[in-house]
Amino acid sequence: MRSLAHTLVLQTPGRGLLLFTEAVKDWVASVAGGSTATGLLTLYCRHTSASLLVQENADPEVLADLDRFFSRLVPDGDPLFRHTAEGPDDMPAHVRAALTQPHLSVPVVQGQLTLGTWQGIYLFEHRRRPHRREVVLQYLGS
Amino acid sequence: MRSLAHTLVLQTPGRGLLLFTEAVKDWVASVAGGSTATGLLTLYCRHTSASLLVQENADPEVLADLDRFFSRLVPDGDPLFRHTAEGPDDMPAHVRAALTQPHLSVPVVQGQLTLGTWQGIYLFEHRRRPHRREVVLQYLGS
Amino acid sequence: MRSLAHTLVLQTPGRGLLLFTEAVKDWVASVAGGSTATGLLTLYCRHTSASLLVQENADPEVLADLDRFFSRLVPDGDPLFRHTAEGPDDMPAHVRAALTQPHLSVPVVQGQLTLGTWQGIYLFEHRRRPHRREVVLQYLGS
Repeated sequence: MRSLAHTLVLQTPGRGLLLFTEAVKDWVASVAGGSTATGLLTLYCRHTSASLLVQENADPEVLADLDRFFSRLVPDGDPLFRHTAEGPDDMPAHVRAALTQPHLSVPVVQGQLTLGTWQGIYLFEHRRRPHRREVVLQYLGS
Repeated sequence: MRSLAHTLVLQTPGRGLLLFTEAVKDWVASVAGGSTATGLLTLYCRHTSASLLVQENADPEVLADLDRFFSRLVPDGDPLFRHTAEGPDDMPAHVRAALTQPHLSVPVVQGQLTLGTWQGIYLFEHRRRPHRREVVLQYLGS
Repeated sequence: MRSLAHTLVLQTPGRGLLLFTEAVKDWVASVAGGSTATGLLTLYCRHTSASLLVQENADPEVLADLDRFFSRLVPDGDPLFRHTAEGPDDMPAHVRAALTQPHLSVPVVQGQLTLGTWQGIYLFEHRRRPHRREVVLQYLGS
Protein backbone atom coordinates (compact mmCIF):
# COMPACT_ATOMS: atom_id res chain seq x y z
CA MET A 1 0.00 0.00 0.00
CA ARG A 2 1.30 3.45 -0.94
CA SER A 3 0.69 6.76 0.79
CA LEU A 4 2.17 9.75 -1.02
CA ALA A 5 1.60 13.49 -1.16
CA HIS A 6 2.57 16.41 -3.36
CA THR A 7 1.76 20.12 -3.42
CA LEU A 8 0.66 21.73 -6.69
CA VAL A 9 1.09 25.48 -7.02
CA LEU A 10 -1.45 27.19 -9.26
CA GLN A 11 -1.39 30.79 -10.38
CA THR A 12 -4.90 32.15 -10.91
CA PRO A 13 -5.66 35.13 -13.18
CA GLY A 14 -8.44 36.34 -10.83
CA ARG A 15 -12.03 35.22 -10.23
CA GLY A 16 -13.19 32.21 -12.18
CA LEU A 17 -12.56 28.53 -12.80
CA LEU A 18 -9.09 27.22 -13.62
CA LEU A 19 -8.92 23.72 -15.15
CA PHE A 20 -6.03 21.57 -13.88
CA THR A 21 -7.15 18.00 -14.55
CA GLU A 22 -4.01 17.16 -16.54
CA ALA A 23 -1.62 18.07 -13.71
CA VAL A 24 -3.62 15.79 -11.39
CA LYS A 25 -3.64 12.92 -13.88
CA ASP A 26 0.11 13.26 -14.41
CA TRP A 27 0.81 13.04 -10.69
CA VAL A 28 -1.50 10.02 -10.24
CA ALA A 29 0.25 8.27 -13.14
CA SER A 30 3.61 8.87 -11.43
CA VAL A 31 2.62 7.46 -8.02
CA ALA A 32 -0.07 4.79 -8.51
CA GLY A 33 1.24 1.28 -9.09
CA GLY A 34 0.48 0.92 -12.77
CA SER A 35 -2.51 -0.35 -14.71
CA THR A 36 -3.85 -2.59 -11.94
CA ALA A 37 -3.72 0.00 -9.14
CA THR A 38 -6.81 0.75 -7.04
CA GLY A 39 -6.82 3.66 -4.63
CA LEU A 40 -8.05 7.10 -3.65
CA LEU A 41 -6.81 10.50 -4.77
CA THR A 42 -7.64 13.40 -2.48
CA LEU A 43 -7.14 17.09 -3.32
CA TYR A 44 -7.08 19.77 -0.66
CA CYS A 45 -7.11 23.55 -1.17
CA ARG A 46 -5.13 25.40 1.52
CA HIS A 47 -7.14 28.63 1.26
CA THR A 48 -10.46 30.06 2.48
CA SER A 49 -11.16 32.24 -0.57
CA ALA A 50 -10.66 29.60 -3.27
CA SER A 51 -12.15 26.10 -3.57
CA LEU A 52 -12.30 22.92 -5.66
CA LEU A 53 -15.00 21.99 -8.12
CA VAL A 54 -15.76 19.18 -10.52
CA GLN A 55 -17.66 20.53 -13.52
CA GLU A 56 -18.32 20.05 -17.19
CA ASN A 57 -15.22 20.68 -19.29
CA ALA A 58 -16.98 20.88 -22.66
CA ASP A 59 -18.77 24.25 -23.04
CA PRO A 60 -16.89 27.28 -21.58
CA GLU A 61 -20.27 28.99 -21.18
CA VAL A 62 -20.99 26.59 -18.28
CA LEU A 63 -18.05 28.06 -16.37
CA ALA A 64 -19.13 31.63 -17.10
CA ASP A 65 -22.71 30.82 -16.02
CA LEU A 66 -21.45 29.24 -12.79
CA ASP A 67 -19.47 32.33 -11.88
CA ARG A 68 -22.42 34.54 -12.87
CA PHE A 69 -24.69 32.57 -10.54
CA PHE A 70 -22.31 32.84 -7.57
CA SER A 71 -21.78 36.56 -8.23
CA ARG A 72 -25.53 37.13 -8.08
CA LEU A 73 -26.06 34.90 -5.02
CA VAL A 74 -23.21 36.51 -3.04
CA PRO A 75 -22.80 40.06 -4.40
CA ASP A 76 -19.51 41.88 -3.91
CA GLY A 77 -19.98 44.77 -1.48
CA ASP A 78 -23.16 43.26 0.01
CA PRO A 79 -24.04 45.54 2.99
CA LEU A 80 -24.87 42.39 5.00
CA PHE A 81 -21.15 41.81 5.55
CA ARG A 82 -19.05 43.50 8.24
CA HIS A 83 -15.73 41.79 7.43
CA THR A 84 -14.64 44.21 4.70
CA ALA A 85 -10.99 44.80 5.60
CA GLU A 86 -9.63 43.35 2.36
CA GLY A 87 -12.19 44.89 0.02
CA PRO A 88 -15.72 44.22 -1.33
CA ASP A 89 -14.84 40.75 -2.70
CA ASP A 90 -13.25 39.48 0.53
CA MET A 91 -16.24 38.20 2.51
CA PRO A 92 -18.12 37.05 -0.65
CA ALA A 93 -15.03 34.93 -1.40
CA HIS A 94 -15.31 33.21 2.00
CA VAL A 95 -19.02 32.54 1.48
CA ARG A 96 -18.46 31.16 -2.02
CA ALA A 97 -15.75 28.86 -0.60
CA ALA A 98 -18.18 27.68 2.10
CA LEU A 99 -20.85 26.92 -0.52
CA THR A 100 -18.44 24.83 -2.56
CA GLN A 101 -15.63 22.87 -0.85
CA PRO A 102 -11.92 22.78 -0.01
CA HIS A 103 -11.46 19.06 -0.65
CA LEU A 104 -12.24 16.49 -3.29
CA SER A 105 -11.70 12.72 -3.34
CA VAL A 106 -11.76 10.69 -6.55
CA PRO A 107 -11.31 6.89 -6.66
CA VAL A 108 -8.53 5.48 -8.83
CA VAL A 109 -9.33 2.22 -10.69
CA GLN A 110 -6.92 0.43 -13.03
CA GLY A 111 -4.43 3.20 -12.42
CA GLN A 112 -6.77 5.96 -13.60
CA LEU A 113 -8.99 8.59 -12.02
CA THR A 114 -12.65 7.56 -12.37
CA LEU A 115 -13.73 10.98 -13.66
CA GLY A 116 -16.80 10.91 -15.90
CA THR A 117 -16.49 11.69 -19.60
CA TRP A 118 -17.42 15.36 -19.19
CA GLN A 119 -15.84 16.01 -15.81
CA GLY A 120 -12.89 18.33 -15.27
CA ILE A 121 -11.20 19.29 -11.98
CA TYR A 122 -11.18 23.05 -11.37
CA LEU A 123 -9.76 25.47 -8.86
CA PHE A 124 -12.44 28.09 -8.24
CA GLU A 125 -10.73 31.42 -7.53
CA HIS A 126 -13.14 33.67 -5.63
CA ARG A 127 -10.99 36.83 -5.32
CA ARG A 128 -10.87 39.37 -8.15
CA ARG A 129 -7.10 39.75 -8.16
CA PRO A 130 -4.66 37.01 -9.29
CA HIS A 131 -3.46 34.71 -6.50
CA ARG A 132 -0.92 31.97 -5.93
CA ARG A 133 -2.81 28.90 -4.64
CA GLU A 134 -1.59 25.64 -3.14
CA VAL A 135 -3.48 22.37 -3.65
CA VAL A 136 -2.21 19.28 -1.81
CA LEU A 137 -2.60 15.94 -3.64
CA GLN A 138 -2.64 12.78 -1.60
CA TYR A 139 -2.75 9.20 -2.92
CA LEU A 140 -3.58 6.10 -0.90
CA GLY A 141 -3.73 2.74 -2.62
CA SER A 142 -1.90 0.05 -4.47
CA MET B 1 -4.81 -3.29 4.11
CA ARG B 2 -7.46 -3.57 1.41
CA SER B 3 -8.15 -1.22 -1.50
CA LEU B 4 -11.18 -2.14 -3.58
CA ALA B 5 -13.59 -0.41 -5.91
CA HIS B 6 -16.96 -1.09 -7.49
CA THR B 7 -19.32 0.86 -9.75
CA LEU B 8 -23.00 1.08 -8.83
CA VAL B 9 -25.44 1.90 -11.61
CA LEU B 10 -28.54 3.79 -10.50
CA GLN B 11 -31.58 4.55 -12.61
CA THR B 12 -33.23 7.81 -11.55
CA PRO B 13 -36.91 8.62 -12.28
CA GLY B 14 -36.05 12.31 -12.83
CA ARG B 15 -35.35 15.23 -10.49
CA GLY B 16 -35.24 14.42 -6.81
CA LEU B 17 -33.46 12.35 -4.17
CA LEU B 18 -32.92 8.61 -4.61
CA LEU B 19 -32.04 6.66 -1.45
CA PHE B 20 -29.41 3.94 -1.97
CA THR B 21 -27.94 3.39 1.51
CA GLU B 22 -28.65 -0.34 1.45
CA ALA B 23 -26.65 -0.98 -1.74
CA VAL B 24 -23.70 0.85 -0.16
CA LYS B 25 -23.98 -1.11 3.10
CA ASP B 26 -24.15 -4.39 1.19
CA TRP B 27 -20.98 -3.61 -0.74
CA VAL B 28 -19.09 -2.54 2.40
CA ALA B 29 -20.15 -5.76 4.13
CA SER B 30 -18.75 -7.74 1.20
CA VAL B 31 -15.32 -6.06 1.13
CA ALA B 32 -14.44 -4.89 4.66
CA GLY B 33 -12.64 -7.43 6.81
CA GLY B 34 -15.46 -8.36 9.16
CA SER B 35 -16.59 -7.00 12.51
CA THR B 36 -13.22 -5.56 13.52
CA ALA B 37 -12.51 -3.68 10.27
CA THR B 38 -11.66 0.03 10.32
CA GLY B 39 -11.49 1.98 7.08
CA LEU B 40 -12.90 4.60 4.77
CA LEU B 41 -15.68 4.30 2.20
CA THR B 42 -15.68 6.92 -0.55
CA LEU B 43 -18.48 7.44 -3.07
CA TYR B 44 -17.96 9.36 -6.28
CA CYS B 45 -20.62 10.51 -8.76
CA ARG B 46 -19.36 10.52 -12.37
CA HIS B 47 -21.72 13.26 -13.55
CA THR B 48 -22.01 17.04 -13.49
CA SER B 49 -25.80 17.21 -13.28
CA ALA B 50 -26.31 14.82 -10.36
CA SER B 51 -24.64 14.76 -6.94
CA LEU B 52 -24.43 12.96 -3.59
CA LEU B 53 -26.16 13.98 -0.40
CA VAL B 54 -26.48 12.71 3.14
CA GLN B 55 -29.87 13.64 4.53
CA GLU B 56 -32.58 12.62 6.96
CA ASN B 57 -34.27 9.38 5.92
CA ALA B 58 -37.28 9.64 8.24
CA ASP B 59 -39.79 12.19 6.89
CA PRO B 60 -40.21 12.19 3.06
CA GLU B 61 -41.33 15.84 3.36
CA VAL B 62 -37.67 16.74 4.08
CA LEU B 63 -36.68 15.48 0.63
CA ALA B 64 -39.52 17.38 -1.05
CA ASP B 65 -38.59 20.56 0.84
CA LEU B 66 -34.94 20.20 -0.17
CA ASP B 67 -35.84 19.92 -3.83
CA ARG B 68 -38.29 22.83 -3.47
CA PHE B 69 -35.52 24.98 -1.98
CA PHE B 70 -33.06 24.22 -4.77
CA SER B 71 -35.72 24.79 -7.44
CA ARG B 72 -36.40 28.25 -6.00
CA LEU B 73 -32.70 29.10 -5.56
CA VAL B 74 -31.75 28.01 -9.09
CA PRO B 75 -34.90 28.36 -11.23
CA ASP B 76 -35.20 26.39 -14.45
CA GLY B 77 -35.04 28.75 -17.42
CA ASP B 78 -33.32 31.51 -15.42
CA PRO B 79 -32.42 34.22 -18.00
CA LEU B 80 -29.05 34.61 -16.24
CA PHE B 81 -27.85 31.45 -17.98
CA ARG B 82 -26.47 31.28 -21.51
CA HIS B 83 -25.69 27.55 -21.59
CA THR B 84 -29.17 26.40 -22.62
CA ALA B 85 -28.37 23.85 -25.33
CA GLU B 86 -29.90 20.92 -23.45
CA GLY B 87 -32.98 22.73 -22.17
CA PRO B 88 -34.08 24.99 -19.28
CA ASP B 89 -33.01 22.48 -16.58
CA ASP B 90 -29.49 21.95 -17.96
CA MET B 91 -27.50 24.81 -16.44
CA PRO B 92 -29.55 24.80 -13.20
CA ALA B 93 -28.51 21.13 -12.87
CA HIS B 94 -24.83 22.10 -13.07
CA VAL B 95 -25.28 24.83 -10.45
CA ARG B 96 -27.18 22.49 -8.11
CA ALA B 97 -24.36 19.95 -8.49
CA ALA B 98 -21.80 22.66 -7.66
CA LEU B 99 -23.75 23.64 -4.53
CA THR B 100 -23.85 20.05 -3.30
CA GLN B 101 -20.97 17.65 -4.09
CA PRO B 102 -19.82 14.79 -6.31
CA HIS B 103 -18.05 12.85 -3.55
CA LEU B 104 -18.71 11.59 -0.05
CA SER B 105 -16.43 9.80 2.42
CA VAL B 106 -17.79 7.89 5.41
CA PRO B 107 -15.56 6.15 7.98
CA VAL B 108 -16.10 2.44 8.61
CA VAL B 109 -15.75 1.28 12.23
CA GLN B 110 -16.23 -2.32 13.39
CA GLY B 111 -17.11 -3.23 9.84
CA GLN B 112 -19.97 -0.74 9.59
CA LEU B 113 -20.55 2.69 8.06
CA THR B 114 -20.66 5.30 10.83
CA LEU B 115 -23.86 6.92 9.53
CA GLY B 116 -25.94 8.64 12.19
CA THR B 117 -29.31 7.20 13.19
CA TRP B 118 -31.29 9.44 10.82
CA GLN B 119 -28.80 9.63 7.97
CA GLY B 120 -29.39 8.14 4.54
CA ILE B 121 -27.16 8.30 1.45
CA TYR B 122 -28.90 9.83 -1.57
CA LEU B 123 -28.19 10.43 -5.21
CA PHE B 124 -29.57 13.87 -6.03
CA GLU B 125 -30.79 13.85 -9.64
CA HIS B 126 -30.92 17.42 -10.95
CA ARG B 127 -32.29 16.81 -14.46
CA ARG B 128 -36.03 16.48 -15.03
CA ARG B 129 -35.81 13.39 -17.21
CA PRO B 130 -34.81 9.93 -15.95
CA HIS B 131 -31.09 9.18 -16.19
CA ARG B 132 -28.68 6.29 -15.77
CA ARG B 133 -26.06 7.35 -13.20
CA GLU B 134 -22.78 5.75 -12.15
CA VAL B 135 -21.46 6.03 -8.60
CA VAL B 136 -18.01 4.58 -7.87
CA LEU B 137 -17.54 3.04 -4.40
CA GLN B 138 -14.02 2.78 -3.04
CA TYR B 139 -12.94 1.11 0.21
CA LEU B 140 -9.60 1.52 1.93
CA GLY B 141 -8.98 -0.17 5.26
CA SER B 142 -8.61 -3.40 7.16
CA MET C 1 -0.17 1.26 7.01
CA ARG C 2 -2.46 2.37 9.81
CA SER C 3 -6.25 2.63 9.83
CA LEU C 4 -7.70 4.10 13.01
CA ALA C 5 -10.86 5.86 14.07
CA HIS C 6 -12.12 7.87 17.01
CA THR C 7 -15.36 9.69 17.85
CA LEU C 8 -15.20 13.27 19.13
CA VAL C 9 -18.18 14.55 21.08
CA LEU C 10 -18.78 18.30 20.77
CA GLN C 11 -21.29 20.32 22.75
CA THR C 12 -22.60 23.27 20.73
CA PRO C 13 -24.07 26.41 22.36
CA GLY C 14 -26.63 26.76 19.51
CA ARG C 15 -26.43 28.07 15.94
CA GLY C 16 -23.00 29.13 14.75
CA LEU C 17 -19.46 27.92 14.13
CA LEU C 18 -17.52 25.99 16.76
CA LEU C 19 -13.75 25.79 16.25
CA PHE C 20 -12.22 22.39 17.12
CA THR C 21 -8.96 22.30 15.15
CA GLU C 22 -6.86 21.58 18.25
CA ALA C 23 -8.78 18.44 19.16
CA VAL C 24 -8.27 17.14 15.61
CA LYS C 25 -4.54 17.96 15.65
CA ASP C 26 -4.13 16.23 19.01
CA TRP C 27 -5.73 13.05 17.74
CA VAL C 28 -3.68 13.04 14.53
CA ALA C 29 -0.49 13.49 16.59
CA SER C 30 -1.48 10.47 18.69
CA VAL C 31 -2.13 8.10 15.75
CA ALA C 32 0.10 9.12 12.82
CA GLY C 33 3.55 7.53 12.76
CA GLY C 34 5.63 10.55 13.74
CA SER C 35 7.33 13.30 11.76
CA THR C 36 7.68 11.29 8.53
CA ALA C 37 4.07 10.10 8.34
CA THR C 38 1.98 10.67 5.19
CA GLY C 39 -1.72 9.95 5.21
CA LEU C 40 -5.30 11.15 5.10
CA LEU C 41 -7.49 12.42 7.93
CA THR C 42 -11.24 12.26 7.32
CA LEU C 43 -13.88 13.86 9.55
CA TYR C 44 -17.51 12.83 9.39
CA CYS C 45 -20.48 14.52 11.09
CA ARG C 46 -23.19 12.06 12.13
CA HIS C 47 -26.05 14.57 11.88
CA THR C 48 -28.30 16.15 9.26
CA SER C 49 -28.68 19.54 10.98
CA ALA C 50 -24.99 20.28 11.59
CA SER C 51 -22.05 20.16 9.18
CA LEU C 52 -18.29 20.65 8.82
CA LEU C 53 -16.57 23.73 7.47
CA VAL C 54 -13.03 24.94 6.90
CA GLN C 55 -12.88 28.69 7.30
CA GLU C 56 -10.68 31.60 8.30
CA ASN C 57 -9.80 31.48 11.98
CA ALA C 58 -8.45 35.05 12.22
CA ASP C 59 -11.34 37.56 12.30
CA PRO C 60 -14.44 36.42 14.28
CA GLU C 61 -16.51 38.77 12.08
CA VAL C 62 -16.04 36.25 9.23
CA LEU C 63 -17.89 33.63 11.24
CA ALA C 64 -20.70 36.06 12.12
CA ASP C 65 -20.99 37.11 8.45
CA LEU C 66 -21.14 33.48 7.33
CA ASP C 67 -23.99 32.72 9.70
CA ARG C 68 -25.74 35.96 8.67
CA PHE C 69 -25.52 34.94 5.01
CA PHE C 70 -26.97 31.47 5.61
CA SER C 71 -29.75 32.91 7.80
CA ARG C 72 -30.75 35.24 4.97
CA LEU C 73 -30.48 32.56 2.27
CA VAL C 74 -32.52 29.99 4.22
CA PRO C 75 -34.78 31.96 6.57
CA ASP C 76 -36.21 30.29 9.66
CA GLY C 77 -39.95 29.83 9.27
CA ASP C 78 -39.81 30.10 5.47
CA PRO C 79 -43.37 29.26 4.24
CA LEU C 80 -41.79 27.20 1.43
CA PHE C 81 -41.14 24.40 3.92
CA ARG C 82 -43.69 21.78 4.98
CA HIS C 83 -41.43 19.79 7.32
CA THR C 84 -41.96 21.96 10.40
CA ALA C 85 -42.51 19.34 13.10
CA GLU C 86 -39.47 20.36 15.13
CA GLY C 87 -39.87 24.12 14.78
CA PRO C 88 -39.07 26.97 12.36
CA ASP C 89 -35.30 26.24 12.36
CA ASP C 90 -35.67 22.51 11.61
CA MET C 91 -35.93 22.39 7.81
CA PRO C 92 -33.58 25.41 7.35
CA ALA C 93 -31.01 23.38 9.32
CA HIS C 94 -31.31 20.48 6.85
CA VAL C 95 -30.92 22.85 3.88
CA ARG C 96 -27.89 24.57 5.43
CA ALA C 97 -26.34 21.12 6.02
CA ALA C 98 -26.98 20.20 2.36
CA LEU C 99 -25.34 23.43 1.18
CA THR C 100 -22.22 22.74 3.25
CA GLN C 101 -21.08 19.13 3.89
CA PRO C 102 -21.00 16.30 6.42
CA HIS C 103 -17.44 15.18 5.64
CA LEU C 104 -13.99 16.67 5.27
CA SER C 105 -10.69 15.06 4.25
CA VAL C 106 -7.32 16.72 4.92
CA PRO C 107 -3.98 15.22 3.85
CA VAL C 108 -1.34 14.63 6.52
CA VAL C 109 2.27 15.35 5.49
CA GLN C 110 5.28 14.97 7.78
CA GLY C 111 2.92 14.01 10.56
CA GLN C 112 0.88 17.21 10.33
CA LEU C 113 -2.44 18.31 8.85
CA THR C 114 -1.82 20.38 5.72
CA LEU C 115 -4.20 23.16 6.78
CA GLY C 116 -3.36 26.59 5.36
CA THR C 117 -2.12 29.34 7.64
CA TRP C 118 -5.57 30.89 8.14
CA GLN C 119 -7.66 27.71 8.07
CA GLY C 120 -9.55 26.37 11.04
CA ILE C 121 -11.83 23.32 11.23
CA TYR C 122 -15.35 24.16 12.42
CA LEU C 123 -18.51 22.35 13.32
CA PHE C 124 -21.39 24.41 11.91
CA GLU C 125 -24.39 24.03 14.23
CA HIS C 126 -27.56 24.87 12.32
CA ARG C 127 -30.15 24.46 15.10
CA ARG C 128 -30.86 27.32 17.51
CA ARG C 129 -30.73 25.22 20.67
CA PRO C 130 -27.52 23.65 22.06
CA HIS C 131 -26.84 20.13 20.81
CA ARG C 132 -24.51 17.22 21.51
CA ARG C 133 -22.77 16.35 18.21
CA GLU C 134 -20.60 13.40 17.21
CA VAL C 135 -17.78 13.75 14.68
CA VAL C 136 -15.94 10.59 13.63
CA LEU C 137 -12.21 11.00 12.88
CA GLN C 138 -10.55 8.43 10.64
CA TYR C 139 -6.86 8.20 9.80
CA LEU C 140 -5.33 6.17 6.97
CA GLY C 141 -1.59 6.33 6.34
CA SER C 142 1.86 5.64 7.61
